[in-house]
Amino acid sequence: MYSLPAALEKLVQELSRLPGVGPKTARRLAFNLISGDREKMESLASSIIEAKNRIVHCSRCFGFSESEICQICESPRRDAEVLCVVERASDILPFENSGVHKGLYFVLGGVLSPLDGIKPETLHIPLLVERIEKESIKELILALGSSPEAESTALYIDRVLANSPVRRTRLARGIPVGSDLEFIDDVTMLRAFEERVGV
Amino acid sequence: MYSLPAALEKLVQELSRLPGVGPKTARRLAFNLISGDREKMESLASSIIEAKNRIVHCSRCFGFSESEICQICESPRRDAEVLCVVERASDILPFENSGVHKGLYFVLGGVLSPLDGIKPETLHIPLLVERIEKESIKELILALGSSPEAESTALYIDRVLANSPVRRTRLARGIPVGSDLEFIDDVTMLRAFEERVGV
Repeated sequence: MYSLPAALEKLVQELSRLPGVGPKTARRLAFNLISGDREKMESLASSIIEAKNRIVHCSRCFGFSESEICQICESPRRDAEVLCVVERASDILPFENSGVHKGLYFVLGGVLSPLDGIKPETLHIPLLVERIEKESIKELILALGSSPEAESTALYIDRVLANSPVRRTRLARGIPVGSDLEFIDDVTMLRAFEERVGV
Repeated sequence: MYSLPAALEKLVQELSRLPGVGPKTARRLAFNLISGDREKMESLASSIIEAKNRIVHCSRCFGFSESEICQICESPRRDAEVLCVVERASDILPFENSGVHKGLYFVLGGVLSPLDGIKPETLHIPLLVERIEKESIKELILALGSSPEAESTALYIDRVLANSPVRRTRLARGIPVGSDLEFIDDVTMLRAFEERVGV
């Protein structure tokens, strides 16, 4: 079996560790990088290092930030009474892009999964509860996706806050806008039907 | 419109310059890199730099190499009488993976495209002709893909060598039209190679 020159093979290996990048894609990316100019490769390499050095997790919401507190948490224009709870820092992006949420965020860092050893303390759940006790939060939007683990995490948080006056909501489930009904999966259809609202 | 922290946005931009990587994929890759450990990112960044520093084009065949002459050109076990002409250095890989070609390679560096200013001298065609004159090559396999430009490049080389005793062949039809050589599976490559016919 032929092998690529070692440095090239190493690059292919590294690239194929990225999510959604199989061996063929990794090879295509590596060949493209190799064939490009030096500046392009150095620029990519340095942005990787730069991002790793400069991006931290906001100490209030655990979203991506370049400072101790992120720009969202720091903004005086955000509604501090509405807190949107998401699984990962990257989940903040679709909310911000749609501009629909005027409040703040809180990144859990995952969802509960006892079999994998992910308990409430593994996530930021105790910090979330503490924050709700200290601050004047009126609504908690649990935006945790629809896997069984995500659903039980939302239920767990709801239960922990059973005696709290904070209103707990979750995103509506239903037919995505612009989708053809014929391509909707059964579970989504079931939810959309059950949660139907008045016209 | 919300923007990601600058260093993260820069990384997303850099990644989306890669082939086949759109803005969403770039974001997913960037989030994954950011969320991984420091070692993982540094390792990727250093392999990019390392590959760029160490990989050169073999001065005989123009394939990827870590030394002046690549391991294929240097091998005494290869049949120096059969030369396989490919468009790009990455096209060597599928031949080597299928193990079907025992001879040597020659990378043209592209295909003729007069409208884009790509003339025979822009490619390595003069060097190929020179090599054929100097060495005892008996067969030239023109493995140039099936685009009109590739076909006319093969025809051009065939015509240049009209008075040469070197046998010119091309890969059998069997390579799917519109496919990159780089992504051909081993069996198809084997068939196409065995059924090569006179130009």
